[in-house]
Amino acid sequence: MTENFTTRATVAGLGDMGRALAAALRRNGFPVTVWNRTPGKAGELTAAGAREAAGLAEAFEASPVVILCVVDNEAVGELLDAAGDRLRGRTVVNLTNGTPRQARELAERVTALGAEYVDGGIMAVPPGIGTEASFVLYSGPEHAVEAQRELFEAFGAVRYVGEDTGLAALYDLALLSGMYGMHAGVVHAYALIGSAGVPATEFSALLVPWIEAMSGFVKEAADRVDRDDYTKDVVSNLAMQAKAFPNLIEASVEQGVRPDLMEPVLRLFRERVAQGHGDEDAVGVIKLLRGES
Amino acid sequence: MTENFTTRATVAGLGDMGRALAAALRRNGFPVTVWNRTPGKAGELTAAGAREAAGLAEAFEASPVVILCVVDNEAVGELLDAAGDRLRGRTVVNLTNGTPRQARELAERVTALGAEYVDGGIMAVPPGIGTEASFVLYSGPEHAVEAQRELFEAFGAVRYVGEDTGLAALYDLALLSGMYGMHAGVVHAYALIGSAGVPATEFSALLVPWIEAMSGFVKEAADRVDRDDYTKDVVSNLAMQAKAFPNLIEASVEQGVRPDLMEPVLRLFRERVAQGHGDEDAVGVIKLLRGES
Repeated sequence: MTENFTTRATVAGLGDMGRALAAALRRNGFPVTVWNRTPGKAGELTAAGAREAAGLAEAFEASPVVILCVVDNEAVGELLDAAGDRLRGRTVVNLTNGTPRQARELAERVTALGAEYVDGGIMAVPPGIGTEASFVLYSGPEHAVEAQRELFEAFGAVRYVGEDTGLAALYDLALLSGMYGMHAGVVHAYALIGSAGVPATEFSALLVPWIEAMSGFVKEAADRVDRDDYTKDVVSNLAMQAKAFPNLIEASVEQGVRPDLMEPVLRLFRERVAQGHGDEDAVGVIKLLRGES
Repeated sequence: MTENFTTRATVAGLGDMGRALAAALRRNGFPVTVWNRTPGKAGELTAAGAREAAGLAEAFEASPVVILCVVDNEAVGELLDAAGDRLRGRTVVNLTNGTPRQARELAERVTALGAEYVDGGIMAVPPGIGTEASFVLYSGPEHAVEAQRELFEAFGAVRYVGEDTGLAALYDLALLSGMYGMHAGVVHAYALIGSAGVPATEFSALLVPWIEAMSGFVKEAADRVDRDDYTKDVVSNLAMQAKAFPNLIEASVEQGVRPDLMEPVLRLFRERVAQGHGDEDAVGVIKLLRGES
């Protein structure tokens, strides 16, 4: 690279997240070019010293690192359609939400354009970018991630998860699964307890420690999964849980609470018991999710 | 009560949980009578000093406190059918899994038999009974619970939740909802990450702190629910989450993981967005669960 770049990094896509990323780079003193498909989003960033590119071509050309944070990977594809030769020699860092397959396909396209491709999964909401709680998952060529580590640290902790480009999206989505499951359980719990007039904040005094005590379960479940053995040290087996679970559905319906979020759990428990695995720990339903028996 | 009781408490039902309860009472020095419908379950308990009743009538008559821990509340009903006058003056403590409605119905029946009814929800697995982590929810007449507090403390912390007999079961089921939601999320996460050959224990190093960091969400969600306002301080609105969520379903299917546990979450998000509430925090789906708009 003998090119003279205008800035250290370009951020393309100035939604809430793209703006938070560009602002974090500026706070850390990095010269930044920003660009958005529709204008009018860069005001605060240019006030903070960012350069706004007049067009996508200029945005791509401005920096050795081009960070993409747009609505979805279809939109990323459209940006690449317009790239021509302007990404050659650059590192393209795609922080757009997507799937592992999409990441792998984009990596091929970007590589064919003469650039390196790094995929990323941001584990923070926009206001959390650059705070202690924030971390970003990266996958793709390790040397490309390491070369930008200082830049990436502006966003939060750098978690490199592997050469397979799809891994950052997979880790991201797996963490989201954990979050959405917990979300579903907590919302159902508040709906149920609220049906008797109990305030959620009062109930949360029991629910918070109860959920915190479950973090031991998360580790124990991992051990079972890696051993692929769900019958060791079972203290409450699936048959028994499947027998008591209808109380939860029945009580929800009686209390006027839709059981939508709990029904699939019971269905899987029953399916696993019907396969003859009633003696297992409930984590054994992972075999059903994987299509194994 | 001028009766001369043989023992302090009777435990009827000697499954894993009933045996754990009786054993905890013995460890705490309480004279105990035990009974099970089919014989041969009392061996270790009689060795620990428990008295085995020859029949249900004797079991009911033996103690001022009769603890029921059987397979379900239908079985409790059958025990009451056979009670005749033998429960008069006693406190019946039903620790069988059930629904709030069942608890209220049984309370009426027990009261008609001249006894007091306390309903309980055990928040522990059998090996956890009497340990620090264990607690039991009680509902019904407060004086009846307070009169047996010392006895109940043998099982774990005593959590009295109110006069409405159905409350212990409701609290119990609401806590279980939280647990099952988390369980669903964690199992889906391990299935997804395992599809790329990543060991669950390796992934748990990220998942455990991620889930622990969510306990702030549990409290914050309670505040939203009690204010019944889901539009304040929204950092990631439902419309955006509903837009990114299909990646999770799509990636699961691509990786060979059944999306059963995640699909209902997406359906509710979309339903709420379609109602015109895309600007809300995701906790707003509680309105759908309650049948509100």
